[in-house]
Amino acid sequence: MKFKVSKASLNRGINIAIKAVPSHSTMAIMSCMLVKAEENSLELTGNDLEIGIMTTIDAEVTEPGIVALDAKMFQSIISKMPSGDILVSVDDNYVTTIKSGKARFSICGQNPEMFTGLPEIETENPFLISGDTLREMIQGTLFSVATNETSKVMTGELFQIKDDNLRIVALDGHRLALREVNTLSGHPDMKVVVPAKSMNEISKIINPASNEDVYIYSSDNHLVLKIEDTIITTRLIDGEYFDVNRVINANCTTQVTVDKNALIECIERAGLFVKAGDKKPIILDVRDNEIEFSINSPTGAMAESLDVYKHGEDLHVGFNPHLLADAIKATPDSTVKLSFAGVKSPCYIKDEDMNYFYMVLPVNI
Amino acid sequence: MKFKVSKASLNRGINIAIKAVPSHSTMAIMSCMLVKAEENSLELTGNDLEIGIMTTIDAEVTEPGIVALDAKMFQSIISKMPSGDILVSVDDNYVTTIKSGKARFSICGQNPEMFTGLPEIETENPFLISGDTLREMIQGTLFSVATNETSKVMTGELFQIKDDNLRIVALDGHRLALREVNTLSGHPDMKVVVPAKSMNEISKIINPASNEDVYIYSSDNHLVLKIEDTIITTRLIDGEYFDVNRVINANCTTQVTVDKNALIECIERAGLFVKAGDKKPIILDVRDNEIEFSINSPTGAMAESLDVYKHGEDLHVGFNPHLLADAIKATPDSTVKLSFAGVKSPCYIKDEDMNYFYMVLPVNI
Repeated sequence: MKFKVSKASLNRGINIAIKAVPSHSTMAIMSCMLVKAEENSLELTGNDLEIGIMTTIDAEVTEPGIVALDAKMFQSIISKMPSGDILVSVDDNYVTTIKSGKARFSICGQNPEMFTGLPEIETENPFLISGDTLREMIQGTLFSVATNETSKVMTGELFQIKDDNLRIVALDGHRLALREVNTLSGHPDMKVVVPAKSMNEISKIINPASNEDVYIYSSDNHLVLKIEDTIITTRLIDGEYFDVNRVINANCTTQVTVDKNALIECIERAGLFVKAGDKKPIILDVRDNEIEFSINSPTGAMAESLDVYKHGEDLHVGFNPHLLADAIKATPDSTVKLSFAGVKSPCYIKDEDMNYFYMVLPVNI
Repeated sequence: MKFKVSKASLNRGINIAIKAVPSHSTMAIMSCMLVKAEENSLELTGNDLEIGIMTTIDAEVTEPGIVALDAKMFQSIISKMPSGDILVSVDDNYVTTIKSGKARFSICGQNPEMFTGLPEIETENPFLISGDTLREMIQGTLFSVATNETSKVMTGELFQIKDDNLRIVALDGHRLALREVNTLSGHPDMKVVVPAKSMNEISKIINPASNEDVYIYSSDNHLVLKIEDTIITTRLIDGEYFDVNRVINANCTTQVTVDKNALIECIERAGLFVKAGDKKPIILDVRDNEIEFSINSPTGAMAESLDVYKHGEDLHVGFNPHLLADAIKATPDSTVKLSFAGVKSPCYIKDEDMNYFYMVLPVNI
């Protein structure tokens, strides 16, 4: 096996595929990246059995072949190489020589047959969505995924296609985040739950500079995404996801329209007195033309009022300031509308067209 | 106590004084910053009993006074405040109210008499040095200070004035770093050892943009530095420091001149196979017009040759690549000269005028 490749593109390819290589593993082969050279291209594959990533880069292949290399070592060698072309050759015992300029490395590769490749999944009838849109939908919801494992299904995101709408939902028992977009794809309805880690890697692999579509295929146990030269295969989480429709149509009696940045800064000031995991709420007093935010804690007190446009009833309600700030930050607009369905009501943050919907449960005061 | 101050300058002042506030302490008063308002200025003081920092900023003081405030809480409140003027008032029970725009905070301060202030030290006969020079001397040596505490004196830096020369030295049993500068100050000779943490804070407080001189005063147990509006008081470490003159005049038989960046990159490539704390050396084969660097480890092998100008004997010697790279990186020139005094000799890196001197001990091969 023998190939020549530019340092820049090999570096880029390794940094994509390594996202699926587990950072700690007791088995040496699990820490490996599969490197496969065939005519004019190089395939780099990482696989931690939950998510698998394969990316293809251009290369001058003189002798096709395949080897498994320790991913971290391969990454650090290539990143430290002088820029320019890199020559790689692998002998029958998988001893791999990496050369560039006057520098020559040799490392021991492993038998590629030991490596668990990506599952073969039929790729027909893709669902198409713009990469930018998908990335924004993931980033706008992922922070609400449950981090503890008491309910396995809540550690993933709902990925649902219904009547050409793609809906992504995350929730953790205190809050819910939802993004929805219409797609005209004509794809049959589907409803799966994707692990949060996979969603995170997907959003990071989508190149913000490119306008390419993402192709999405599904099977019973996997979702497959094709993003430019990269194929991501992720396992799905079994289980019934929370029925979101139960909460999105509440009858709101108070509505407040307010400048997003001023609101975030004000809530963050109140949040100074609330440590993570603390149950101390920030109190909102919604009155005509203003909300007063206040908090009293053993460390200190804070009060601040904010000019708003209010419609409906006055209100006195308490929230965890960090959860509220997270949801408001995730909205794409410069003005946000907070809605409430009376006392002890959650705070709903949504736009007219339901492109986004955030819900934060109240805290008893 | 009552004063008005701009957010920007209060923020800057807090960020300087807080460097001397211990991040964890069982006593609440130890986590405090002393805030003292007197005519037209505000004094902010942090003190962890090893290093004390007092900085002065302009303020409109309506009512002089003094209070001790939890430093972290004070810092986060001020940093989250809207920009503009901040009004602070303190009542007789040390309850402190902080106002800006429509935001109002109140926190409980503490009795300032509980706070340990900076020791009073006679400030006469200062030693003057340009801030830029002092910062560069500290940054060029500090990485060599011993991190374990087996020898207390090695956890500090030697700060020595002799015949108008200032010399700063750090060493850890494997390497030595020395910087020296002539100052024309006419200051009497002195020789003290300053804790590494203090030296680090001093180098960070010196503003890189300003050309101001630093005023240095010494007493039996303390060194005091005046850097613009900030006074730093640090304890000294007792004990006899290693006699540096024993090693700086070795009789070198091999001298190599080489491009600094190419050398660092090459050593860093070899260092990929050497984990921190590992005893595996990188081998240098010094021959006419080239050095060959090579390393053989269980994880892999590397070899690379570098063009050099050599004077003197051939050499075959081994070093820890991380220590060697650290020393070379710390030199200010674009070309470095490595010198050796035969086999099993340290590597010496120095300039003609002895403005800098680095020594790295060899590893048995």
